[in-house]
Amino acid sequence: MTPAGRTGPTLAVVGATGAVGAVMLGLLSSRQDVWGEIRLIASPRSAGRKLVVRGEEVEVVALDEAAFDGVDVAMFDVPDEVSARWAPIAAAKGAVVVDNSAAFRMDPDVPLVVPEVNAAAARIRPRGIIANPNCTTLSMIVAVGALHAEFGLTELVVSSYQAASGAGRPGVDTLRDQLTKVAADPSLGTQPGDVRRAAGDFGPFPAPLALNVVPWAGSLKDDGWTSEELKVRNESRKILGLPGLRVNATCVRVPVVTAHSLTVHARFENEVTVTAAHDLLRAAPGVVVCDDPAEGEFPTPADVVGTDPTWVGRVRRALDDPYALELFLCGDNLRKGAALNTAQIAELVAAELL
Amino acid sequence: MTPAGRTGPTLAVVGATGAVGAVMLGLLSSRQDVWGEIRLIASPRSAGRKLVVRGEEVEVVALDEAAFDGVDVAMFDVPDEVSARWAPIAAAKGAVVVDNSAAFRMDPDVPLVVPEVNAAAARIRPRGIIANPNCTTLSMIVAVGALHAEFGLTELVVSSYQAASGAGRPGVDTLRDQLTKVAADPSLGTQPGDVRRAAGDFGPFPAPLALNVVPWAGSLKDDGWTSEELKVRNESRKILGLPGLRVNATCVRVPVVTAHSLTVHARFENEVTVTAAHDLLRAAPGVVVCDDPAEGEFPTPADVVGTDPTWVGRVRRALDDPYALELFLCGDNLRKGAALNTAQIAELVAAELL
Repeated sequence: MTPAGRTGPTLAVVGATGAVGAVMLGLLSSRQDVWGEIRLIASPRSAGRKLVVRGEEVEVVALDEAAFDGVDVAMFDVPDEVSARWAPIAAAKGAVVVDNSAAFRMDPDVPLVVPEVNAAAARIRPRGIIANPNCTTLSMIVAVGALHAEFGLTELVVSSYQAASGAGRPGVDTLRDQLTKVAADPSLGTQPGDVRRAAGDFGPFPAPLALNVVPWAGSLKDDGWTSEELKVRNESRKILGLPGLRVNATCVRVPVVTAHSLTVHARFENEVTVTAAHDLLRAAPGVVVCDDPAEGEFPTPADVVGTDPTWVGRVRRALDDPYALELFLCGDNLRKGAALNTAQIAELVAAELL
Repeated sequence: MTPAGRTGPTLAVVGATGAVGAVMLGLLSSRQDVWGEIRLIASPRSAGRKLVVRGEEVEVVALDEAAFDGVDVAMFDVPDEVSARWAPIAAAKGAVVVDNSAAFRMDPDVPLVVPEVNAAAARIRPRGIIANPNCTTLSMIVAVGALHAEFGLTELVVSSYQAASGAGRPGVDTLRDQLTKVAADPSLGTQPGDVRRAAGDFGPFPAPLALNVVPWAGSLKDDGWTSEELKVRNESRKILGLPGLRVNATCVRVPVVTAHSLTVHARFENEVTVTAAHDLLRAAPGVVVCDDPAEGEFPTPADVVGTDPTWVGRVRRALDDPYALELFLCGDNLRKGAALNTAQIAELVAAELL
């Protein structure tokens, strides 16, 4: 199955047919190619489909133990319970697993890696598994990590503006269907519940998303917090190596197809200035500063979708606190928020294997 | 011109033909009627139009000095420069002016009033003018004021999710036009700039609003802050009588027709609990608690539009700070955020005059 002339480790893409999988195949086709065989794996239902990667058609094979024969690195983008079952099987067969589910992120024996922030952590992986953070954490952590390295982070207050594709293909399909319905009636959005009645199916969301914002993402945890909000907290702490970091997030879904945005109030041990923050963010790998409001320059998800970096704008020093910054960040939740970070981690592992 | 049988002070509505004016006429038709004559005033361009208030057609008269003859209370909802010129003229003619522009809000001789929070301030008005706060401040301040009265507020970190109608009728028209365009092409929102190219005119916004969020509202002030963000800060301080209150806001426009939403991180002098916060918010006039996520209960703008209260949900105590709460608030920016609060202030003045 190895294409003629290709050398390098064998990569498996598990969940190749999903929304993140599609972005992953695009990334694998456009990034510097370090892989020998690329094997595409999905549920038995999708086996036999042909997908294009690196300009070649590859037939999807069903997820089973034999699918991992000879695999060096296996990327997983599948539901938590599928990862929980199959990632250890792939690891037992000798693959290094890079998993984008929540199943292993808080496991002390599994590193949680963002290459720009803590690449060295990827080398210590007692279970043979490396976890990829949640998309909302990933939409801010490269920029926040660069600020932390200079100023010493002590507190984050985060509000998210999360895109529909964070809920996968059903999220996008639901938003598009609702948009068509609400665009047809120019009276909607003016009376309580009129959008709710017109929107039809809510899909994976608990309320209509078109002409609305929904202060909910994930599942209900203790004391009214959502799983998504706790991921932002716990994953930021683990990635930055700051177990006592104060983090409080409120996660809100907005009617955007792809690219998460966040407002961040970040407090530091040291005094900050906007100039110093701009300078170090401009020098940080994976970060683009877009912050000249006099010229109308700030990031928006519609401009950031489809790009790799974390975009930073609206950088201001808190008005009563020389130790705090206010920021507005945007990042593509399917790229850096999922597929790109997974690919970057896999490439770190590939570099070890060469 | 006084309708037969009506007694009570004469009210002038200046800016009767605008987006807030339309909501005002609806409110004046549905609230307990304390007014004698209601005179509708607008620019000379709109003079002669007939609008319905209290079930009767009333002809709009042009804004000039004579229009304020015999007026006891004049509500202004017009641009800042129009208020700056005409409110003092109306006051000099004996009217108490309730002004919804930014022209007088920070004037030390003009009280800034939210009846549920600081009704008594309305009585001391050396210039004969009472200011109505900005819609974003008003979308949170009733709930925040109730919490402050119990716990003693020390800090606010606010992120807004502001509706298009905050930019008036042009904002709504722009959003609806863009929605029609982006709903027609199901490929949009996946490539950088595709929504920007398809959206057409941006209207009063600096970027497309459909399928996007825009981290900008108002005009550029010092150090990268927007006028809207500084209004939230300065107005909250004045209304609550807390000149040293720490307030940092980031204002973001979202593709919602009407009803602003906000996330609020509020820190207090005293320890807080969710139960105590729920109890006092439930008892607070003008506040509705909608906070049972296990049952899918949280406020969203699509459900809150067209209603009077400030809706509060997602109440959580900060995970590392027993002195801080996280909240998600929604309020109709044209009602409590503008017309309703103005009407409430005018009614306070009418009660004095009776």
